[in-house]
Amino acid sequence: MFEHRIDATWGECDVAGLVYFPRMLDWCHRALEAMFGALPGGYAHFTGPRRMGIPTVRIEGDFVAPVRYGEQCVLRVSVTRVGRSSVTFEHEIVGAVDGQRRARFTHVVAVCSLDGPVAVEVPADVRAMLAAHEVTRSSP
Amino acid sequence: MFEHRIDATWGECDVAGLVYFPRMLDWCHRALEAMFGALPGGYAHFTGPRRMGIPTVRIEGDFVAPVRYGEQCVLRVSVTRVGRSSVTFEHEIVGAVDGQRRARFTHVVAVCSLDGPVAVEVPADVRAMLAAHEVTRSSP
Amino acid sequence: MFEHRIDATWGECDVAGLVYFPRMLDWCHRALEAMFGALPGGYAHFTGPRRMGIPTVRIEGDFVAPVRYGEQCVLRVSVTRVGRSSVTFEHEIVGAVDGQRRARFTHVVAVCSLDGPVAVEVPADVRAMLAAHEVTRSSP
Amino acid sequence: MFEHRIDATWGECDVAGLVYFPRMLDWCHRALEAMFGALPGGYAHFTGPRRMGIPTVRIEGDFVAPVRYGEQCVLRVSVTRVGRSSVTFEHEIVGAVDGQRRARFTHVVAVCSLDGPVAVEVPADVRAMLAAHEVTRSSP
Repeated sequence: MFEHRIDATWGECDVAGLVYFPRMLDWCHRALEAMFGALPGGYAHFTGPRRMGIPTVRIEGDFVAPVRYGEQCVLRVSVTRVGRSSVTFEHEIVGAVDGQRRARFTHVVAVCSLDGPVAVEVPADVRAMLAAHEVTRSSP
Repeated sequence: MFEHRIDATWGECDVAGLVYFPRMLDWCHRALEAMFGALPGGYAHFTGPRRMGIPTVRIEGDFVAPVRYGEQCVLRVSVTRVGRSSVTFEHEIVGAVDGQRRARFTHVVAVCSLDGPVAVEVPADVRAMLAAHEVTRSSP
Repeated sequence: MFEHRIDATWGECDVAGLVYFPRMLDWCHRALEAMFGALPGGYAHFTGPRRMGIPTVRIEGDFVAPVRYGEQCVLRVSVTRVGRSSVTFEHEIVGAVDGQRRARFTHVVAVCSLDGPVAVEVPADVRAMLAAHEVTRSSP
Repeated sequence: MFEHRIDATWGECDVAGLVYFPRMLDWCHRALEAMFGALPGGYAHFTGPRRMGIPTVRIEGDFVAPVRYGEQCVLRVSVTRVGRSSVTFEHEIVGAVDGQRRARFTHVVAVCSLDGPVAVEVPADVRAMLAAHEVTRSSP
């Protein structure tokens, strides 16, 4: 599991004083960018010189409780499936102080060449990096 | 069904030249704001003087094809379920020129008092407005 | 002068119910994108096949009065100077209903090749398009 | 002087691979939120229970060099003037690695009650906090 901390900022909150829901999906991507930081050169090298990307192909999840302005959250990201050219992540967002769940998402990305974009096989080094965060889902 | 047109702008596109996926969910909310425009005073009156809101409680959907910078899209929004204090919308995003599907989402919102927030019953006028966009889902 | 209408949306407003100030600068860019729509293929062709861009090099302006959620604004954009490889725009943002000024900005962009980025001479067709919105500033 | 580090994220970068200029102004606000963190309860308490805010009334500055995706920047914020109900900040944004200047802004905010909004006198504790970051501008 990979953990990433994010503070809810003024520009991310709406008129109700709560983090606007699409920004929580931006948080999920920011957590992935941080996770890819383990690769040499990080996500910037992955998307720059290597010309690869991980466009989102599917999202499914629940906003369980609001995140209020000023709260810090912890994103806990697990890898639940690595296919030939796709990866499935589970994101859990909890309050940093209370540990209570705010949201959870299943997030499927394609691994692509940005020249296209066209799906490509998950490179070996990416596969190895992802393996460090892989969890085996228990049978129900 | 309710239709709303949106242009992909520079600030919504990422390094790959494609609309960044969380912004498509912002588009879904913007379509709902436009739909609520049919109420007297629109969404601003709903959220302002009436102190109500529609926080997202669940999202599920597929990003079928990328939206490139400069493309105009049409959001087609249907109401598929109106509960006591929740509403389910189906969003389909298609290219305005080619009519091809780019994304689809099932989007569940709670109807809330912003003083809380706490769930409240869907008001009669909102229910009537939503009924105009309701579709009966055919059995598979 | 070029005019462009923009609605203040939920995701652009902050906890105080007012459009968050950086988003008004995004509005200025969106107005420029719309202005460049007069070129064949619009801003998408300018930045895509032609590989050009107009990065902001300077901004200066006043936020005179807040824009509240749900308000529609009119952006009035004038060209006040076209240099060898830079352009100066004046933006005035007024309420669509009350006509009252909300903000004004002087906005200087460089005209660049995205391959770099490196400043290039303003192309003749862009210069002609800009001329249609040029105003001569009266001496004080 | 107050320092705050920010990573350029995927969702903040445009098609050219550079941080979209309005987001650098969001960075300035995020730095102020962090600076106000020195008050008990931070900016969240200031804007929440105390119902105060610091709307931007003026911005002036230069984008000296682009910030590329993946770069970390340091925001150096100084207080250059504290008036009865306004504060002037100087922001300098430099690359965390190369120390080179990317942008600088003069940023004037009003100190307001959110119930209005209406300008109010800068409270004593805020004034004391700001004093810690005040610089005396040398004569030219």
